[in-house]
Amino acid sequence: MNVAIMGYGTVGSGVAEVLKKNHEHIVKKSLQESLDLKYILDLRDFPGDPNEKLVIKDFNTILNDETVGVVVETMGGLRPAFEFVSACLKAGKSVVTSNKELVAAKGLELLALAEENNVNFLFEASVGGGIPIIRPIIQCLSANEIEEVAGILNGTTNYILTKMFMQGTAYEDALADAQRLGYAERDPSADVDGIDACRKICILADLCFGREVKPDSFRVEGIRNITSADVGYARAWGGVIKLIASAKSENGGSNISLRVSPAFISGDSQLACVNDVFNAILVRGNALGDVVFYGRGAGKLPTASAVVADVIDCARHSERRKPFGWSDAPDGFVLGEGEFTSRFFVRTQSVKESVLSAFADAEFITFDGAPADETAFVTGMIKKQELDEKLAALGGVKSVIRVTDY
Amino acid sequence: MNVAIMGYGTVGSGVAEVLKKNHEHIVKKSLQESLDLKYILDLRDFPGDPNEKLVIKDFNTILNDETVGVVVETMGGLRPAFEFVSACLKAGKSVVTSNKELVAAKGLELLALAEENNVNFLFEASVGGGIPIIRPIIQCLSANEIEEVAGILNGTTNYILTKMFMQGTAYEDALADAQRLGYAERDPSADVDGIDACRKICILADLCFGREVKPDSFRVEGIRNITSADVGYARAWGGVIKLIASAKSENGGSNISLRVSPAFISGDSQLACVNDVFNAILVRGNALGDVVFYGRGAGKLPTASAVVADVIDCARHSERRKPFGWSDAPDGFVLGEGEFTSRFFVRTQSVKESVLSAFADAEFITFDGAPADETAFVTGMIKKQELDEKLAALGGVKSVIRVTDY
Repeated sequence: MNVAIMGYGTVGSGVAEVLKKNHEHIVKKSLQESLDLKYILDLRDFPGDPNEKLVIKDFNTILNDETVGVVVETMGGLRPAFEFVSACLKAGKSVVTSNKELVAAKGLELLALAEENNVNFLFEASVGGGIPIIRPIIQCLSANEIEEVAGILNGTTNYILTKMFMQGTAYEDALADAQRLGYAERDPSADVDGIDACRKICILADLCFGREVKPDSFRVEGIRNITSADVGYARAWGGVIKLIASAKSENGGSNISLRVSPAFISGDSQLACVNDVFNAILVRGNALGDVVFYGRGAGKLPTASAVVADVIDCARHSERRKPFGWSDAPDGFVLGEGEFTSRFFVRTQSVKESVLSAFADAEFITFDGAPADETAFVTGMIKKQELDEKLAALGGVKSVIRVTDY
Repeated sequence: MNVAIMGYGTVGSGVAEVLKKNHEHIVKKSLQESLDLKYILDLRDFPGDPNEKLVIKDFNTILNDETVGVVVETMGGLRPAFEFVSACLKAGKSVVTSNKELVAAKGLELLALAEENNVNFLFEASVGGGIPIIRPIIQCLSANEIEEVAGILNGTTNYILTKMFMQGTAYEDALADAQRLGYAERDPSADVDGIDACRKICILADLCFGREVKPDSFRVEGIRNITSADVGYARAWGGVIKLIASAKSENGGSNISLRVSPAFISGDSQLACVNDVFNAILVRGNALGDVVFYGRGAGKLPTASAVVADVIDCARHSERRKPFGWSDAPDGFVLGEGEFTSRFFVRTQSVKESVLSAFADAEFITFDGAPADETAFVTGMIKKQELDEKLAALGGVKSVIRVTDY
């Protein structure tokens, strides 16, 4: 069986490298006589690249070659990735992708297309890079009703927050550092505004709760507004600040609440120890309790390794579809922002007495060097809508950050 | 399809509970019309138990009932578990077990028997309780040559070491506390002497390296000799002490080194944050880097949840065998103790000058309250045999603890 790669960027070239590096091992695992890289589709030329001769410009070469059984899509973006992947599936070729944007936006449609054509559409690498998460959710945790899935899904923002926390670096300087190291793009919006984490949590929510949720159906908040003072308060409280993407079953599974936002994480949480560019995903099952999967959420070889595991799976099970998928979500499935229930950290210009009259259970926090003329506290469990109403009445609110229970 | 449980102890009754609690969800996942618990084999009676009527005493009732497609073995111990499991597999019934002793000692034989009879023998719950680890190793990491698998595989010893570290409790008191809480048996040997962790690392090594290794083929060292002074040195060095079970590929995969022993773990390692009864397993792949799986390594419902996931898998794929197994190991596959290479922490009555003449790269450690009249240091990478020779010449050695690089 032959393999084609569409998109020879970081991940695509990593896939070629892993296929070569572990070739013998991979062929054996795939139960095929051979598993060879035949084409690399890319508009660019790669003079001097060891795979230079495999590079083609015409997608139809792949589409019309019956020896190509598995196509790897590592182009990124929605178009033409969506059209190419659709065409491959219709032509009876299995497709493996690392493209979270594609899966988050078109996963339901592509899985249906794969099913119709009796091939596989796999996307382990689209969430958590090399961390095995999609298969464990589908198979290993199958005895559980999943109550919540949450995690640190973006390495760039985690690097920035770690630097702010460990070294007291200001946000702008930590971002500049991440850009210098190649962790952040020149336009860092997809990372720092939570867009990347949002796509990933949508995919995890689809898998865990069986309904397709759209990236634009809920509140997404990035880390741009996190200050050194917030970091100081988190430390004084006994924890850290992480960008947490989460999806939680609500009302006995009739709804879910989704959120991407900075959060206070207790220092004894397993997520609190996840530093630098590492990712971690927590899954809470009703029988299992919490399990956490940790590793490199990005990077050439880790991500490529997840792609190649999917390629092996496609080759190994060329006669059979992997058993997952989800269906459309009914209207109102994703709860509105106001329904989101949590504890919250609040900084306000109001005095303690005013805070206590609105939040009798407020737990005040301060630290040496805390900004003057403000009061900081953590609330008890409260609906976001109720919180907003109380804070509007209180006035002088400077920032609000949720507090997780994991 | 019907299910039978052999052994109605903690895990067995947990399996019955999860099958009932998540029944609708489980039947749907299993792709069967029904998946009902029909028999519970146990020599004891359970008056008043909700499943009292299902309890039987005669194993042949299960064996001869063609409607029983999956048998859960949660009896523990080698006999009669081995005979019962063998008979079930020969009768064309898939078997799911949480019994690490059985898998570590008889896994190869039982997998072969399952293959002959075209049924499944699954054992996800035998390592790491509810933590998904076996399937991720087999499937998700398949693109990688695995370089090392290591972890905190025993919750009882981790509880004791956490208490010694966090609260300065002496070993004996921490053990008594674990016994009081039901984490440790009255005879704690299987836990504190590393026997339980040894069985689990054998299973992981079998899976990662494809060769069956026997629990008695390598050095196993428990935590009985860890003192408060060792804990103080570990803290001063910037880390913690954990009981680490590890299996590492050596000589390009021709050999492996295996070890269960206390170890110094750097404070910024993901394993350093694993406290109390939690377990974590680190897998290092040649493309992937390190991934860590974290969760409850024991406990009724977490373990039962892993068993039931396997039951679902058996029911779902009743026509097909799960693709794993391993073969006999050639003589000399497991390297001898002397070949084990690592950094080591050493306490000796020798003076610094003598230490430096033997270990030029020694990194000395001390702390307020360290025992007088001794020198403590960490070596560079060295073979155990060479270390032992140097230490014999040096004399006055009080303790030796390995230092990991993860």
